[in-house]
Amino acid sequence: MHSVDLSEAEAFFRQHAAENPNAPDPEERFSEALVEFGRRGTFGHTTEELEFGARVAWRNANRCIGRLYWRSLIVRDRRSVRSAEGVAAECVEHLRVATNGGRIRPVLTLFAADQPGRPAPRLRNSQLIRYAGYQGMESVIGDPGQAEFTRWVESMGWSGKGTDFDVLPLAIETPEDGVRLFDIPGDAVLEVPLSHPEFPWFAELDLKWHAVPAISSMPLRIGGITYPTAPFNGWYMGTEIGSRNLVDADRYDRMTQVGRLLGLDVDNDRSLWKDRVLVEINRAVLHSFDEAGAKIADHHHESEMFMRFVEKEERAGREAHAEWSWVVPPLASTTSPVYHRYYDESAVLPGFLPGTGWTP
Amino acid sequence: MHSVDLSEAEAFFRQHAAENPNAPDPEERFSEALVEFGRRGTFGHTTEELEFGARVAWRNANRCIGRLYWRSLIVRDRRSVRSAEGVAAECVEHLRVATNGGRIRPVLTLFAADQPGRPAPRLRNSQLIRYAGYQGMESVIGDPGQAEFTRWVESMGWSGKGTDFDVLPLAIETPEDGVRLFDIPGDAVLEVPLSHPEFPWFAELDLKWHAVPAISSMPLRIGGITYPTAPFNGWYMGTEIGSRNLVDADRYDRMTQVGRLLGLDVDNDRSLWKDRVLVEINRAVLHSFDEAGAKIADHHHESEMFMRFVEKEERAGREAHAEWSWVVPPLASTTSPVYHRYYDESAVLPGFLPGTGWTP
Ligand code: HEM
Ligand code: HEM
Repeated sequence: MHSVDLSEAEAFFRQHAAENPNAPDPEERFSEALVEFGRRGTFGHTTEELEFGARVAWRNANRCIGRLYWRSLIVRDRRSVRSAEGVAAECVEHLRVATNGGRIRPVLTLFAADQPGRPAPRLRNSQLIRYAGYQGMESVIGDPGQAEFTRWVESMGWSGKGTDFDVLPLAIETPEDGVRLFDIPGDAVLEVPLSHPEFPWFAELDLKWHAVPAISSMPLRIGGITYPTAPFNGWYMGTEIGSRNLVDADRYDRMTQVGRLLGLDVDNDRSLWKDRVLVEINRAVLHSFDEAGAKIADHHHESEMFMRFVEKEERAGREAHAEWSWVVPPLASTTSPVYHRYYDESAVLPGFLPGTGWTP
Repeated sequence: MHSVDLSEAEAFFRQHAAENPNAPDPEERFSEALVEFGRRGTFGHTTEELEFGARVAWRNANRCIGRLYWRSLIVRDRRSVRSAEGVAAECVEHLRVATNGGRIRPVLTLFAADQPGRPAPRLRNSQLIRYAGYQGMESVIGDPGQAEFTRWVESMGWSGKGTDFDVLPLAIETPEDGVRLFDIPGDAVLEVPLSHPEFPWFAELDLKWHAVPAISSMPLRIGGITYPTAPFNGWYMGTEIGSRNLVDADRYDRMTQVGRLLGLDVDNDRSLWKDRVLVEINRAVLHSFDEAGAKIADHHHESEMFMRFVEKEERAGREAHAEWSWVVPPLASTTSPVYHRYYDESAVLPGFLPGTGWTP
């Protein structure tokens, strides 16, 4: 549980006023919040404050390479939605607003904060869209990263089709109902079948990926208050799918299969077959999203946009903090301008807090 | 100037004794050093202490992925060599011992520490072997990273052949003679012409690289004393040449040339042509060194060896510190086990100190 912090609140009101000519006077605004806090042990932000706070939280996301676009974040204030059905419906609506027929928009949906004696609803999924992982005797069908979560929702009665790409249900916990599961309607999930610009056999691997990455496990801290349920999405950067989800040994692990089909010497790491496979899978990802009209960034372009963000922040009299190991793309790292400098790695608020990790 | 630190000396004598059954009693050894310090304002290490200290400095090199082999370091104690000619001759001998006909051995040559009123000799080169860079009107012939140093040695009368790969002279500074230059005999420099296992045109690019990377700009701090001149070498990891020296925009910058010869779409970063070029240049580097019988590590193997080092250190009751951004290979980073964890990044002594950077 994250407690209310009044000095953080005061600093936030000042920042809000400093960056927004139309914001209320921070001293007055803080007095108002103090009165409210005295009365009921917490206080409420205005929708305008939350919109600003959520955007700045993105601007402060040290692990995010995509921050140039922080002002464009669409913030959906849904603090009044408290029922499990309501939260589920708003998550689905989030996906529709974000997907936008492939022209993906950055969106954040903000649900209520905990209040004294009244816990707020929580999403138990790590992302709104993830594929189930079914643990078999020797191997996993689907996403091994979701095997534990899958077993858990199965224990509550969910059952998937058993394919490699079954979208998991939303698991929403409320004080009234405990955990309830909700399937996401198929038409709210844009998916992209993967093919390669040169190798026809690639399509026969029957790989696909969903177009919207929407993290739902990170609490959002704004102006002294923690919002535990605040799913947000951008668009993908290709390497997330092509260098991690499809190839990590504890994820879909398709490296060797693709290496063999490429005719590479997969028994000899020194042949750099892995390095070659990564290039081809990443090409397939970018190519397929482009063909499908689903927005996706490549790491070269996004690196340039990030450097522009860093410069813009400097011109605004701020310093862009960043975690080097997260913002440097994992493919052709040295060709990215992001590689060739260091950053202040310290965390700043408003910001997204580390998720607690999944436990049943 | 780095001053003598007696508490560091004491800690080092203890560590030496703790890790070496035959080392002298640390209390006695420290008393002895104290007496010597009282008499002449500094004290001397034994050759055996320096051998241990230099090896531990390597073990503590947080940016080095190659540390599994730290015990094998050959330490050449040359503190008595004080003339410029003597230092030059020992550097050449270092290269011969290290090169070993291609079966490269890790070697460190240790020259004197500064003493009160008596500065020690210094090497002004960043590495024992580097190629000159000649700044022309619009471009550089050779290594742009060495253009400033090249101009400096030219101002002292050196002149190179004007090729892309002219080995720079050693620039040695002594209190007696100031800076003097010494050419390195050609037969002390093993070089590898680069070719590609599949593409014959690659050899026609006339690229090559030297086989021994020998850093000569990092002072070595052991047991409270700084040794300003302590060149050391390992063997190369391929990416140092294939992902940096030959391709960085401020080094040989051959990315576009190779991309065109590969027939790739070099005007479109999203085609991932740069990612592909890196794979092929790195393949050429490993292939060529193998053909030439010159030892070189690939990043996959060296990553495994590094993880073994980390485990071994843990078993020895120590924790291996490391700088993530340096030890994670820049090619196919996510396939390296080194990528998937964090490290304590703090510096430990004995250790190599950051060089001062080159100034004329
Ligand atoms: C608009 C396009 C966006 C792109 C291309 C982008 C790109 C990325 C990438 C590549 C990562 C690293 C992910 C990983 O390696 O697991 C990341 C992390 C992150 N991004 Fe973004 N992002 C975008 C939008 C957003 C938005 C809208 C927000 C919040 C409002 C955001 C907040 C974050 C945070 C908090 C992390 C760290 C996640 C963690 O710790 O697991 N990003 N982003
Ligand atoms: C035996 C084979 C070795 C391999 C494969 C190896 C590999 C590497 C690599 C890849 C780097 C990063 C270089 C860069 O990105 O610029 C590095 C850095 C470093 N290594 Fe090693 N190394 C070896 C031997 C040694 C030895 C013998 C020493 C010292 C006795 C040493 C000390 C260091 C230090 C101090 C750095 C940091 C250099 C800097 O800050 O610029 N290494 N090593």
